[in-house]
Amino acid sequence: MTAKTVEGFSKKNKEEKIDWLIEEFLDQDPDAKSVLMKYWNEDATIQKLHDDFIENTLSNFYLPFGIAPNFVINDAVYAIPMVIEESSVVAAASNAAKFWLDRGGFKAEVLGTEKNGQVHISYAGPKEDLYQFFAQIKSTLQESISGLQKNMHARGGGLKELQLKDSTEHLDHYYQLHGIFETKDAMGANFINSCLEQIATTFEQEAQVFAPFQRLNQFPEVVMSILSNYVPECLVRAEVTCPIRDLTNNGIDGETFAENFLRAVSIAKVEPRRAVTHNKGIMNGIDAVVLATGNDFRAVEAGVHAYAAKNGKYQGLTHASIENGQFKFWIEIPLALGTVGGLTAIHPLVRIAFDILQRPSAEELMKIAAVAGLAQNFAALRSLITTGIQKGHMKMHLMNILNQLEAKETEKEKAVEYFKDHTITHREVAHFLEKLRN
Amino acid sequence: MTAKTVEGFSKKNKEEKIDWLIEEFLDQDPDAKSVLMKYWNEDATIQKLHDDFIENTLSNFYLPFGIAPNFVINDAVYAIPMVIEESSVVAAASNAAKFWLDRGGFKAEVLGTEKNGQVHISYAGPKEDLYQFFAQIKSTLQESISGLQKNMHARGGGLKELQLKDSTEHLDHYYQLHGIFETKDAMGANFINSCLEQIATTFEQEAQVFAPFQRLNQFPEVVMSILSNYVPECLVRAEVTCPIRDLTNNGIDGETFAENFLRAVSIAKVEPRRAVTHNKGIMNGIDAVVLATGNDFRAVEAGVHAYAAKNGKYQGLTHASIENGQFKFWIEIPLALGTVGGLTAIHPLVRIAFDILQRPSAEELMKIAAVAGLAQNFAALRSLITTGIQKGHMKMHLMNILNQLEAKETEKEKAVEYFKDHTITHREVAHFLEKLRN
Repeated sequence: MTAKTVEGFSKKNKEEKIDWLIEEFLDQDPDAKSVLMKYWNEDATIQKLHDDFIENTLSNFYLPFGIAPNFVINDAVYAIPMVIEESSVVAAASNAAKFWLDRGGFKAEVLGTEKNGQVHISYAGPKEDLYQFFAQIKSTLQESISGLQKNMHARGGGLKELQLKDSTEHLDHYYQLHGIFETKDAMGANFINSCLEQIATTFEQEAQVFAPFQRLNQFPEVVMSILSNYVPECLVRAEVTCPIRDLTNNGIDGETFAENFLRAVSIAKVEPRRAVTHNKGIMNGIDAVVLATGNDFRAVEAGVHAYAAKNGKYQGLTHASIENGQFKFWIEIPLALGTVGGLTAIHPLVRIAFDILQRPSAEELMKIAAVAGLAQNFAALRSLITTGIQKGHMKMHLMNILNQLEAKETEKEKAVEYFKDHTITHREVAHFLEKLRN
Repeated sequence: MTAKTVEGFSKKNKEEKIDWLIEEFLDQDPDAKSVLMKYWNEDATIQKLHDDFIENTLSNFYLPFGIAPNFVINDAVYAIPMVIEESSVVAAASNAAKFWLDRGGFKAEVLGTEKNGQVHISYAGPKEDLYQFFAQIKSTLQESISGLQKNMHARGGGLKELQLKDSTEHLDHYYQLHGIFETKDAMGANFINSCLEQIATTFEQEAQVFAPFQRLNQFPEVVMSILSNYVPECLVRAEVTCPIRDLTNNGIDGETFAENFLRAVSIAKVEPRRAVTHNKGIMNGIDAVVLATGNDFRAVEAGVHAYAAKNGKYQGLTHASIENGQFKFWIEIPLALGTVGGLTAIHPLVRIAFDILQRPSAEELMKIAAVAGLAQNFAALRSLITTGIQKGHMKMHLMNILNQLEAKETEKEKAVEYFKDHTITHREVAHFLEKLRN
């Protein structure tokens, strides 16, 4: 071990960890410790709960927990909790919600809820032996997870199908056991992984005593077993629609707005550099709901962006049409979300988020998240094709710049007034404060 | 307005917002308010700072701020701050860091730092008129942003190139002004968007007085102007390598380990369902650093996953080889990160994270994040091809399950001891506690 490295770090208690860090990486700065401690919760029980979430927790990183009201989804009104650090996201969601509140609101429906996972297998022997083996032991594999499935079965979920897939055209000797799962209100990662690992163990055990494998001394080998975050069969659709004339707003005529809007959507279909940012905006809304509800945003992000590339070219995930005087804007997106399990029952603010959302099922949560994504994209496109994105964004970011420049309350008020009709940049705000102060 | 909707919500103060929410969506539950308030910081100045990050902030959502020590990157030792809610991520990162600490550590290099953005244009007139126009006004466009570029120029950045691109084969009348930017230590989103919007304004103004456009009364129209989060020219590479014999570990011989590891990496190249989860694991590490350093994880996620699909098929982002007895494992990934601007100077824990990382430049941060991603993928693959992913994952998640079941400290100790050699599932832990309690 050399300087600045450490053994048994995770065994130290939290203060020892912080002290070690301050000694080795923070030049013995005592302020660092006090900042880290300032972010601890004063209630020791709450703090302990959050310390236990992961290994080596030192403090709590704050992300704003905000709320976007006025969402009408399938005729019910929602206020959507959002956890996000980007200044304009909640404001944009609220604006889009309000805009559609007067135009019939959002409609959403779940198109599928299947999840999947694979046992990845390597096998160099004759194909037909493997298929014969699989046919023979398929029910044994299913029985081997009956204990693991008990709770999930009671809730109406479980392993729905198990298939042997030949992938040898892509990679030598490569086969898969492809499992299709229904996990109801659970995101289901632990359930699926546990099932797959048990299936893999049983598979290898049974293979050892299968005569054709023994005869050639060629046994299938399990490479790995894991769920897939690619969930194109766990799909939700959200939509808004209204007569084109009802889009007339802020002095822009509805027809012009609808046409410019469609053109912007079309560009995200053909130009990947635009599509990536288009979808990033959608995910601003979705991730904010994913985080607030204790779901795993990396899983959702990976599945969504891979879905955007499913046709061989990375494309925007929203669609728009003008037909018979009606404007329609919609999204179809894979979202594997849970409302039980994981952090959902542990994080107190996640519990509040679920209460605010009227304790949704996983399917309801899929709809809410899809709507948040569609709303975010609507707001972004509306800004882009009218005033530009920077005006609204910088208006929301102004307060952060003022805080960074340590503006006093009176200075903030004057700045907000002044920048109502002046372009906001970091430099301009700094100039403004300088002039005020001299 | 109907029930549960609201006007002027953002104008209410924080308590009024909470009271409205409790009245309309939380059945007047007084506990909800006290939970939201328990998560406020006791220091009003700190709380105000966080309230201002976004609109309609009600409270602070805690994500664990943890630390993964023992990372050697280009011969320097780092402790990497990580913000992440998933129980096994920091533990896996620490394990991978420790593993490679004894085998030469990680190497990383930045391959490019260019960012880009587009002014998307619609133009139905003769192509050659547009090209002539662009050639004529190119320098005017560049001059129009000289004020915006002043600070960035001083730091050695700015608009590097502006090209007119013909995209009419993809969409009728579709052209782009494609801008290439260097933004140095800033992520640069606001800078690039401000430049593009100014270029777009100047472009439209100049078009009005360009004779060939006037002659045919056919003017190019700006559809929208915005940066791209697809940044394949802002690329970083991280790598580990060692003699195969040095991989021998935990009773598994190095050669077997290396071969199984390569096979797992190959599967992520050919099977998108595996690739998505493979890359999700990489992003567990990268996003944890992105969050801790105040960067925008949606931007990073979108750019990374689109890059994974750049060859027309979604693929794993890491690569492995065995050559002349050497094992090599590496990643090349687009990461547009900033160490100035945005939240980096405002969020006190982000400032601490930068101090822990020895105040890195944006390029250094790219390397650190890429290493965190590679380490995470190494740890995941190592588990997958040996013990399986669930053992380590559930070991880390055990404390969360115990907290959810409201286990006392003594019960926790007994559970940790018992589950050292028993399979952990939610059901088994519940059974264990039940037995203890009866």
